[in-house]
Amino acid sequence: MKLFNKVAIIGVGLIGGSLGLAIKKLRLANEVIGVSRHKKTLLFAKRVRAIDTGVLDINIIKDADLIIFATPVNTILELAGKISKLIKEGCLVTDVGSTKQEIVSKLDKLFPNYLGAHPLAGSEKRSIMSASPDLFKGTLCILTPTKNTKAKVRRRMVGLWERLGARVIFSSADNHDKVISYVSHLPHAIAFSLIDTMPISYLKFSSSGLRDTTRIAASDSQLWADIFLSNEKNLISSIEHFQARLSKIKFAIKSNNKRQLIKILAQAKKKREGLR
Amino acid sequence: MKLFNKVAIIGVGLIGGSLGLAIKKLRLANEVIGVSRHKKTLLFAKRVRAIDTGVLDINIIKDADLIIFATPVNTILELAGKISKLIKEGCLVTDVGSTKQEIVSKLDKLFPNYLGAHPLAGSEKRSIMSASPDLFKGTLCILTPTKNTKAKVRRRMVGLWERLGARVIFSSADNHDKVISYVSHLPHAIAFSLIDTMPISYLKFSSSGLRDTTRIAASDSQLWADIFLSNEKNLISSIEHFQARLSKIKFAIKSNNKRQLIKILAQAKKKREGLR
Repeated sequence: MKLFNKVAIIGVGLIGGSLGLAIKKLRLANEVIGVSRHKKTLLFAKRVRAIDTGVLDINIIKDADLIIFATPVNTILELAGKISKLIKEGCLVTDVGSTKQEIVSKLDKLFPNYLGAHPLAGSEKRSIMSASPDLFKGTLCILTPTKNTKAKVRRRMVGLWERLGARVIFSSADNHDKVISYVSHLPHAIAFSLIDTMPISYLKFSSSGLRDTTRIAASDSQLWADIFLSNEKNLISSIEHFQARLSKIKFAIKSNNKRQLIKILAQAKKKREGLR
Repeated sequence: MKLFNKVAIIGVGLIGGSLGLAIKKLRLANEVIGVSRHKKTLLFAKRVRAIDTGVLDINIIKDADLIIFATPVNTILELAGKISKLIKEGCLVTDVGSTKQEIVSKLDKLFPNYLGAHPLAGSEKRSIMSASPDLFKGTLCILTPTKNTKAKVRRRMVGLWERLGARVIFSSADNHDKVISYVSHLPHAIAFSLIDTMPISYLKFSSSGLRDTTRIAASDSQLWADIFLSNEKNLISSIEHFQARLSKIKFAIKSNNKRQLIKILAQAKKKREGLR
């Protein structure tokens, strides 16, 4: 069943490209247009059938009935104003940005049919070359409605994500950013710092523990600098919370308090085992 | 080719059990004896053919020509004295403890044919039920010779680990503990702290990033408390090094210094990509 006539994806990287592949594979739209600043990306996206048409000029999106912003957070904020003047009436608008407060507060005002989304389906890979139509299968997608979000928009966006295989959950943008600063941004900040701490000459002694703990430190640095800065307040507070917990472990070791140390580690282990 | 007549493995958990399975599978010994305080473990180990005989009483090891200590660090230190009085002349002795200074300094004095080992092949699993004859294939095994280590002992232990599929590397016990405090103990301390920091209600929003970063926090808490305390000085210093690096990222975020932040993340990413 076609959900849309023409879908425009702005930014054809891992997420945008995977959306295109999935929408085309599942025949959810008659046409998928990809917008990018990079001609090579568009050619590749077209070749792998993630998009039908690739354009460097955003003017073409005026016919679309669904616009998906899939660029880094900063670029979404930059492009939103211009795009709001181009779209046709009734056009649905969404974005897949990793932080939501800034984006939702701006796009909710600009677009009458907007609903923000954050599919928790990233990886340390960033480019269209790692894209897959199955990227969203079995993952969680957080939708961030506001008091302005129309029931119809909400229903159609839920329908889209469910067709892509995601489990949909609702959250305010504020709450989203707080939660994500813990479950995503903090682990990234820690992975980057942890590998940063390693003396180069020690790396040859690394085992799977270090590799797993730092896998996400291979993520794009520009992208993650943007994400960190766009969620500054929450992230600083989750980093400080973590620092306090780590200091507690450090103190238990320093004071040779085995009972306390085992208690902390056992609680952590139990929590980890509860992770789906 | 048989390398040994009778091998005694003291402690039949993940590592000890896997050693038994591999030695039996590769027919490296005529007999493998398992020593444990837990009858159930011995029965299971015998059933899966990780050992030929299981005993609760360490007196039986007097005929062995290779003794492998595969218990937690503390237990190795506790048992060593007693066992040194039981073994026959010429018996090779090794251990697979995760920290080496304390163990090597004690066992090197007690046993004339001792060489310490640390196969970097652990996992968050601990029990014999996760053991595999292939656990050591393609992994690194650090041997920690001293000025007392005989060339023949060294040669035979290298031979054993290479037959098990490990790549052997030499290090002093001091250097081993310093390096391992960075590449293994620090990631564990961080993984425990990171999951410890998560508000329970946020866990349902977790994605693969958090799961990977905290996988090793499902490790045994008693075992890791022992390991942390047995490498206190090095671990405290690597934790403090990490805390300083994390604070640097935190400061770059707080001061909105995007250039500095990208620089740190890009260096980390590059280092991570160099990890084998």
